[in-house]
Amino acid sequence: MKANVYVTLKNGVLDIQGRAVMDALGSLDFKELKDLRIGRFMELEVDAATPEEAKARVTEMCKSLLANPVIEDYRVEVAE
Amino acid sequence: MKANVYVTLKNGVLDIQGRAVMDALGSLDFKELKDLRIGRFMELEVDAATPEEAKARVTEMCKSLLANPVIEDYRVEVAE
Repeated sequence: MKANVYVTLKNGVLDIQGRAVMDALGSLDFKELKDLRIGRFMELEVDAATPEEAKARVTEMCKSLLANPVIEDYRVEVAE
Repeated sequence: MKANVYVTLKNGVLDIQGRAVMDALGSLDFKELKDLRIGRFMELEVDAATPEEAKARVTEMCKSLLANPVIEDYRVEVAE
C-alpha cells in the first residue's frame, strides 16, 4: 500500500531555507512570488491489511522519526 | 494564488537519504516498510491573473532553480 507523508514547518517558525530560495527567485525576476515555504515529501510503500492500519502505522513512523513535533506538522495520505 | 511543487528523485536514481531513514525505521521495528523515498515539497504564494498563468510561472521557477532536471522530476499543482 502506498502512503504519502508531507512534513511542513509549523506556522510561525521561520523557514530560513524557504526565505533564501525566495530571495534567489526574486533576483531571477520572479517578482510575483509572495511567499515560499519548503517541506519534505515522502513516498512510502507499506504492507498493511487495510488503509486504516497503514495510516496508523505511518503516523507512528512520523512520531518516531519522520517529523520533529516541536517545530513541524505532518500529514499522512494513504493512496490505495 | 497558492501553488504546490513536489520534487522527487527520478526512478533509478539512488535515494541515499531515503535508504538511511528506511534502515532506521527498520531498526525501530517497522518491518512492514518496503520502500521509502524522500523529496521536497514547496508551498508558494504567487500573484497571477489565472491559474494557468500561475502554473506556467511556477514551472519556470522549477526550471530555473527549484529542481535539478538531471536527477529530479517535479510536479506543479495550483490550488485555487
